[in-house]
Amino acid sequence: MTETAAARQSEMTLSDQDRRGLYRTILGRRDVRGQFLPDAIDDGVLARILVAAHHAPSVGFMQPWSFIIIRSPEQRARVKAAFDRANTEAALMFDGERAEKYRALKLEGILDAPVNLCITCDRDRAGPVVLGRTHMAEMDLYSTVCAVENLWLAARAEGLGVGWVSIIEPAALRTILDLPERVVPVAYLCLGKVSHFLAQPELENKGWRKRLPLEELVAFDRFNGPGAAGDEAFIERMRQAQQAAESGELV
Amino acid sequence: MTETAAARQSEMTLSDQDRRGLYRTILGRRDVRGQFLPDAIDDGVLARILVAAHHAPSVGFMQPWSFIIIRSPEQRARVKAAFDRANTEAALMFDGERAEKYRALKLEGILDAPVNLCITCDRDRAGPVVLGRTHMAEMDLYSTVCAVENLWLAARAEGLGVGWVSIIEPAALRTILDLPERVVPVAYLCLGKVSHFLAQPELENKGWRKRLPLEELVAFDRFNGPGAAGDEAFIERMRQAQQAAESGELV
Repeated sequence: MTETAAARQSEMTLSDQDRRGLYRTILGRRDVRGQFLPDAIDDGVLARILVAAHHAPSVGFMQPWSFIIIRSPEQRARVKAAFDRANTEAALMFDGERAEKYRALKLEGILDAPVNLCITCDRDRAGPVVLGRTHMAEMDLYSTVCAVENLWLAARAEGLGVGWVSIIEPAALRTILDLPERVVPVAYLCLGKVSHFLAQPELENKGWRKRLPLEELVAFDRFNGPGAAGDEAFIERMRQAQQAAESGELV
Repeated sequence: MTETAAARQSEMTLSDQDRRGLYRTILGRRDVRGQFLPDAIDDGVLARILVAAHHAPSVGFMQPWSFIIIRSPEQRARVKAAFDRANTEAALMFDGERAEKYRALKLEGILDAPVNLCITCDRDRAGPVVLGRTHMAEMDLYSTVCAVENLWLAARAEGLGVGWVSIIEPAALRTILDLPERVVPVAYLCLGKVSHFLAQPELENKGWRKRLPLEELVAFDRFNGPGAAGDEAFIERMRQAQQAAESGELV
């Protein structure tokens, strides 16, 4: 049997049920800040969501990610203090009503969630020359973000909430977590069981920003390129699919 | 009814079937280069996978992504030429046996796949000050990568292959696609039906690099931080979960 035949033989066939599960997880995923419960996370569940992250795509199969599981109250308190400093600075960047609205938002669950997780990128994991990174130096960071999204979706499917805390100086994380120079803190996540998942993104719900119409974000062959004659039907399909997603009937 | 109660009421409850579908999609996803078929992609399927991308997390609900669907043979030929130039340069960066191996790999399906898709990030989509981007300027790029991963997973669940072409000068894409300065080409993807999905990542299969042991990528409370006494059981669970993933029995 050739290598290709062997690979073909054990290819994974996905069902309509699998497809439905994927879409439902994507549509039900939320950035959780205010609904964390203090309950411990099961070891088996944490192991599975890390496996999901580890199966993200990576440039040159580099797998540049590492996972720092942060549970100690001391470490979380340091990170919370770094968040507070950054958030105070951030609030000053908004004006008037917007600033007021900003200050009223809860933007992290660092001490509420039982587990924090820093996902890092080791830029030297595969030596200086990496297949696929030769002309886009940031590809290893992007691979690490794919791992973040995989983990986020797996957590949602397991009933766990994830919140990405980005209002923090990366230099502060570097100090608190002892990161060497070559390791970049890509995502600082809060992770835990939740009282409930919101039906809509919180920033949409609270009137911070609206969901944009998908069809306005799609162009053809070049930036802002209009569709050809036959593309009107496709544009209508996008409108319908977006509506179906919002009413929970995409698949 | 309060806002929270309304949100709680329509929360999406995921089943074990949904969870299984998510994991199976993540484990079965591949970076496709050599298995594309020329068959057209159904409009409804393309609309759904774009909806999946549009439901990615985004910093400050910024939704900075746009999608350029590239079908014209002329545009794809220009991109292919830009890939060829970059790939010739890239091959020279590897030595000896590694260079030979590199040259033997097929690394794109630009002309084979019926649809190419450039996913871009408009860094000005929500004005200069963005909630959550104040201390990590790259968060909008990372949001766009989350959209790429959502689309990739949705495509896999629909039976479509995706390949990310990163061996290309971003400046070349900028010229070919008429991107304004504020818009960054994050991912150039090939998209289409496939003859089959490989059972393993192609670079693993061909001996380019091995899958790393997950448990070596996990630390506690700080970089390289060892686990506490109770963490041995968790480390063993990670080993088991990784083995289960490889034999298709994770969930």
